[in-house]
Amino acid sequence: MTQRELAKEGTVSPQIQQAAQAEDIAPELILQGLADGTTVLPANINHVSGGRGLASRLLLLAPPRAIGRGLRTKVNANIGTSPDFGSMDTELEKLRVAVEYGADAVMDLSTGPDIPGIRRAILANSPVPIGTVPVYQAAAQAMESRGAIVDMTADDLFAAIGEQAEDGVDFITVHCGITLSSLERLKRQRRVTDVVSRGGSFLIGWMLHNGKENPLYEQYDRLLEIARQYDVTLSLGDGMRPGSLADATDRAQIEELIVLGELVERAWEAGVQVMVEGPGHMSLDQIAANVQLEKKLCRGAPFYVLGPLVTDIGAGYDHITAAIGGTVAAAAGADFLCYVTPSEHLGLPDPEDVKVGVIASRLAGHAADIVKGVKGAAEQDLQMARARKRLDWEAQARLSLDPKHSREAHSQHKTESGACSMCGKFCAMDLMEKYLGVTANRC
Amino acid sequence: MTQRELAKEGTVSPQIQQAAQAEDIAPELILQGLADGTTVLPANINHVSGGRGLASRLLLLAPPRAIGRGLRTKVNANIGTSPDFGSMDTELEKLRVAVEYGADAVMDLSTGPDIPGIRRAILANSPVPIGTVPVYQAAAQAMESRGAIVDMTADDLFAAIGEQAEDGVDFITVHCGITLSSLERLKRQRRVTDVVSRGGSFLIGWMLHNGKENPLYEQYDRLLEIARQYDVTLSLGDGMRPGSLADATDRAQIEELIVLGELVERAWEAGVQVMVEGPGHMSLDQIAANVQLEKKLCRGAPFYVLGPLVTDIGAGYDHITAAIGGTVAAAAGADFLCYVTPSEHLGLPDPEDVKVGVIASRLAGHAADIVKGVKGAAEQDLQMARARKRLDWEAQARLSLDPKHSREAHSQHKTESGACSMCGKFCAMDLMEKYLGVTANRC
Repeated sequence: MTQRELAKEGTVSPQIQQAAQAEDIAPELILQGLADGTTVLPANINHVSGGRGLASRLLLLAPPRAIGRGLRTKVNANIGTSPDFGSMDTELEKLRVAVEYGADAVMDLSTGPDIPGIRRAILANSPVPIGTVPVYQAAAQAMESRGAIVDMTADDLFAAIGEQAEDGVDFITVHCGITLSSLERLKRQRRVTDVVSRGGSFLIGWMLHNGKENPLYEQYDRLLEIARQYDVTLSLGDGMRPGSLADATDRAQIEELIVLGELVERAWEAGVQVMVEGPGHMSLDQIAANVQLEKKLCRGAPFYVLGPLVTDIGAGYDHITAAIGGTVAAAAGADFLCYVTPSEHLGLPDPEDVKVGVIASRLAGHAADIVKGVKGAAEQDLQMARARKRLDWEAQARLSLDPKHSREAHSQHKTESGACSMCGKFCAMDLMEKYLGVTANRC
Repeated sequence: MTQRELAKEGTVSPQIQQAAQAEDIAPELILQGLADGTTVLPANINHVSGGRGLASRLLLLAPPRAIGRGLRTKVNANIGTSPDFGSMDTELEKLRVAVEYGADAVMDLSTGPDIPGIRRAILANSPVPIGTVPVYQAAAQAMESRGAIVDMTADDLFAAIGEQAEDGVDFITVHCGITLSSLERLKRQRRVTDVVSRGGSFLIGWMLHNGKENPLYEQYDRLLEIARQYDVTLSLGDGMRPGSLADATDRAQIEELIVLGELVERAWEAGVQVMVEGPGHMSLDQIAANVQLEKKLCRGAPFYVLGPLVTDIGAGYDHITAAIGGTVAAAAGADFLCYVTPSEHLGLPDPEDVKVGVIASRLAGHAADIVKGVKGAAEQDLQMARARKRLDWEAQARLSLDPKHSREAHSQHKTESGACSMCGKFCAMDLMEKYLGVTANRC
């Protein structure tokens, strides 16, 4: 039985228990969310039952992550090879860095050589849920064995999905909402950047070349069957996500979202966990409306956003562009943030990019959790404020998102007073303690 | 006559002309804003008339910057020594970096040795408007010559202001809204982080120790006289700005803002240009309300915000925390963003911190300008989107906020196809061009 099916019959699974404990909330909150569809708990049965290699048993498994309404905003980090760069060692190092800096989930987006091998190594070494985009493997293998992506068969695609589900992948991005009908909408829309979803472009290329409907849409029940068997959470991909501000919130994007809403209900009926992916490039003022639209059209299914990136010109600094949009999206109700690294739009990220990307997204999620009223979020800031008032630098470092960096940066410039090198003897905290002194007993 | 007085009598000054040209707008828009107070154009007459040293004549002077309603959101970079760190050379290097990466103004916040010497060097070398906080000099000199900040006299303070105005400083932060009355409000508020404004803490310490009213409030007309004589733009400081989320939008902060609103009107009556400073640490959901409050209480005077920082726990990454808040603030109407660097809450920034801080703030301002509908903002993104679609990497670099970095990062990992190393032969742009091919003639 899937976590959704268990929840619907009122069973508090060990995964629900652990996920609730990790957030210090009642298991019933997660149970309720799983049952009504506003929460997912990605946990492939082959992951849970120990389908992983030796390496994972040496690691402390992180508690399962529940993603949804009322819960802490979660952060995903994308890693994986490209055809030209990346290696097993580098991707495992990126996995390690992502987990060390607090990613709640990791997606392996490998498109280079030996996709199955890299995926299995990542699964074997990851203490957090792993997501993939199976069409990458199907497309890459079709290119290799049949000469072109467009020569992929529907069976190839479902074979890749089945293989990955069996391997223990916890959630998969499937671009089921691209249909022959939405493709016509796309053409009539006349976009500036057409389609920037890699998986979306594979499927659209295939559909246009073969003149056939998207197998993920046409054979959606076949997909649901696999997902239910292994309790793979479906992440309904937004192949029509805008790749530029000019294309945001257009008819192609919203048409796809309507289709995804219908597919969410079919997944629920089949007992399958499901979330919905969202933009993308989008100006700040459209973000809240997009979140509301997803929540309404998809009946409250968790919303998993990439960014949103609030400007197109941030190359080199798109972790910031995405943190801006991500904070606003999460504060408006988005549940899951896909990080963006400083190398977005420039090249494949390296481990340092992964670190910075994770921290920027966690910062966004945390700032939103304060607004959402998530348990413990504002409390952490209050503790930090009190540590600052006390000039307690160790507590400040401990409470920060990157304790190691905080310690290093502060200790670089010691001053004679307890203050930092920004103000030294002119520290406002110090001065106020002396002249105002009203807070000493409260901190 | 000040720029405000000139505007009120309908004179399009050379500064208005140049500022309008820089933004490709009608001079009348700036003239109208200066006359009704919604715009400032910081331009000390001793700056404009060439009161600077040889170095400035060797530099191309940047056009004057108008700050206010309907105009591009401007960015300020803080530099300056602390008692323990920083030097003439380092500060001039920070100035160079700030200007190179696009700061519209620079504030010299030096509190180390020889404050006047550093300021004059910065003024002599800066192509952009320079701001200061004169109470720093008065306090540091009082500590040196009289033994303590609290032994500073009101005359000391006005002497520092007069000296800096004569030197050519374009705008000064003056914490005029701290009054004995608002201090009582502060005490009754029982804050977590009391007062984190350095200048504010100097004045509050002085007021509490001496049991006297704030000279900047009590002798506001004396301040206005100096400001009018040199056309120094007053930046009414928020000494009560919240230093933690817990203290945001509290009675002390809003009481001070009410006082500043009254002082804005008195400045206008005296022909003096004036803007208002704002928070600070503040959760995302309070930002728009704070901007509206400033605009209402201060009758539309330009709003100059520090951040806002949307969480307290971002040490090491507070340029991101501030970019999030800054985007939302500017989109809601804030006119001028004071950058925050990655070293905020940890120590004095170095030139690399200055670079990153300026870029993060420019990114925030730009993302907001798209929402504000500022001329040319969305157009830049559209050009970028078209360059991406064409896989034109040189145009992408040129249109980005940091062209040098974009070129370097992209060229690090060349692929055989024209695509970047993220997707290589699986580039969505490429695939769509082949199969969809609808946009070729539009880009």
